[in-house]
Amino acid sequence: MSFLNEIYLNLKPYTPGEQLNDKNYIKLNTNENPYGVSEKAKRYAEEEIAKSRLYPDPENSLLAEKIAEYYRVDKNQVIITNGSDEVLYFIFAGFFTGNKKLLFPNITYGFYRVYADFCGVNYYEVPLKADFTINTDDYTKGNANIIIANPNAPTGIYLGLSEIEKIIMADTKSLVVIDEAYIDFGGNSCIELVEKYDNLIVVQTFSKSRQLAGARVGFAISNEKNISDLKKIKYSINPYNVNRVSEAMARGAIEDKEYFDKTVQKIIETREGFVCSLREKGFLVLDSYTNFVFAKHDKIKGKVLYSMLRDRGFLVRHFDTALLTDFIRISIGKKEDMMLLINEIENILKEVERI
Amino acid sequence: MSFLNEIYLNLKPYTPGEQLNDKNYIKLNTNENPYGVSEKAKRYAEEEIAKSRLYPDPENSLLAEKIAEYYRVDKNQVIITNGSDEVLYFIFAGFFTGNKKLLFPNITYGFYRVYADFCGVNYYEVPLKADFTINTDDYTKGNANIIIANPNAPTGIYLGLSEIEKIIMADTKSLVVIDEAYIDFGGNSCIELVEKYDNLIVVQTFSKSRQLAGARVGFAISNEKNISDLKKIKYSINPYNVNRVSEAMARGAIEDKEYFDKTVQKIIETREGFVCSLREKGFLVLDSYTNFVFAKHDKIKGKVLYSMLRDRGFLVRHFDTALLTDFIRISIGKKEDMMLLINEIENILKEVERI
Repeated sequence: MSFLNEIYLNLKPYTPGEQLNDKNYIKLNTNENPYGVSEKAKRYAEEEIAKSRLYPDPENSLLAEKIAEYYRVDKNQVIITNGSDEVLYFIFAGFFTGNKKLLFPNITYGFYRVYADFCGVNYYEVPLKADFTINTDDYTKGNANIIIANPNAPTGIYLGLSEIEKIIMADTKSLVVIDEAYIDFGGNSCIELVEKYDNLIVVQTFSKSRQLAGARVGFAISNEKNISDLKKIKYSINPYNVNRVSEAMARGAIEDKEYFDKTVQKIIETREGFVCSLREKGFLVLDSYTNFVFAKHDKIKGKVLYSMLRDRGFLVRHFDTALLTDFIRISIGKKEDMMLLINEIENILKEVERI
Repeated sequence: MSFLNEIYLNLKPYTPGEQLNDKNYIKLNTNENPYGVSEKAKRYAEEEIAKSRLYPDPENSLLAEKIAEYYRVDKNQVIITNGSDEVLYFIFAGFFTGNKKLLFPNITYGFYRVYADFCGVNYYEVPLKADFTINTDDYTKGNANIIIANPNAPTGIYLGLSEIEKIIMADTKSLVVIDEAYIDFGGNSCIELVEKYDNLIVVQTFSKSRQLAGARVGFAISNEKNISDLKKIKYSINPYNVNRVSEAMARGAIEDKEYFDKTVQKIIETREGFVCSLREKGFLVLDSYTNFVFAKHDKIKGKVLYSMLRDRGFLVRHFDTALLTDFIRISIGKKEDMMLLINEIENILKEVERI
């Protein structure tokens, strides 16, 4: 017998990347940052541990001020959440629930469909073009809320700021959410457009470029009214959603701009080298503005390559759906790990060609 | 213009206890533990910080095993969340949404009404008896889901295990949630009844007796089916809801049974002494099985006492609603703080009597 409400009987929850422990993998499957937590973030965290008997500040004011300063907005334009997944949920639960249609690409962050199903949102998954890019015109017809990951995942493809602006301005009575989880790896954030458009919410995270996937800190920036509405949702669900140590770590991470710049630059360089090597070996690799690449090879199915790599100690991600089945997604690790991986891929290709 | 869905226009979110910073208060308003974080919890937290570049285990297996061991259940009978507020939300969103009526006392944790409103639950707030105790018969008529905080908040009053069992067994087709946030301060947990009844979910937290309000870790224990249903909700909202450092801290806290026992005992002793002193001064004090007391005095209104105490550097909590307005709620701090408080209350009473 299930006590779960019957509306959820067919619920298809999100599937996180595998956490295998059967051997020591080179883990390139969940877009984690290969570089360690910034020393400043560690220090702030260590200092905060002993204060954990006290509730955190539910407004997370100290961190909100730092984020506001960094992105040149007011601190009332910032909401901080337990990972960016949580603020995405707040947006779906608070803004997208209802009758207005929601549009997002048919290939994108898999959680959008899960949130939409869970919240009973009326949504349409807009097909990408054959080259996996977004056709801006599909999103400028008005009368629909929109959520776009930019750069997109798992494709890694980036949509320029002027195209994003076209979408936002096409219908200022509908809400546009731009999910910039990977923006620091090469794209331009559209946060500056928040000043100009009231219908824009920008979502970012400390999980990727700021090395804190394990701390669970995300945030959104918008105008004060949208942020105050999002806080109403937060205060109806979980007011103390960010713990003390994580808030302190995130503060350290955003203050340590030097480390951030250095590590982001290294990841970009490693990515470019890795993309070249893959293409030399005959892979089709989509243009990546993120810390991962999405690639396929005519000679080997995505699932086969994924599983041969896993047998050899490399964990990458394969999405077992019709549209993505040829591809694998590979997070960018340290240069030495990517060289080992390229080497292994070369061996696998030779093996496959012999068969 | 608001983009928030119109169903939320009249939303009344939860109001957390004040976080005043205008002077150095003795903070007795949010039921925090006066004793510091256990040394073992601190050590585990310190060791975990550097690993924060990696996502946490979404199953929180290590902590789930420890909790399961402590409460003698299987680890598949445990779900761990971002504070117990989050698992309460999962329960309201997943199990209480729908047509079956939900019952809870008219004086209880204020968040139940917020969750019920937010999730569109059909609920009825059952009046407590005049002495603030629960009339078990009100909850044994069947065909209604039930949530009861035991001990109750903000009254501190405890309902015995046999009465709880009567409620659970009265209608095994309806769900009964027992929220045991304060159970360690004198009551008996009903976790053992989980073996006997499939319609019981028990909620607990690391925020009170385990000193970790700032780490945000709560959990629920039930049969495997209910827990697996709750995990479906979690994986549809926020799979990585507990960060690495907090999970490690909670593991340390639950392993450090000696510190737990010692600090719980101290709080109980301090509470008993404090209740005596208040009663000597003419207060009506409800019998508390928690780390706070709920008290009123004929000579002074709750709001006035709250505000006179605040002026003198003591932060307690006053709920400005008709049923509770005579009372103040005072968290149990260290013995020396409670003696200072009693002294100040004595001064205030003298002052009031002179007027």
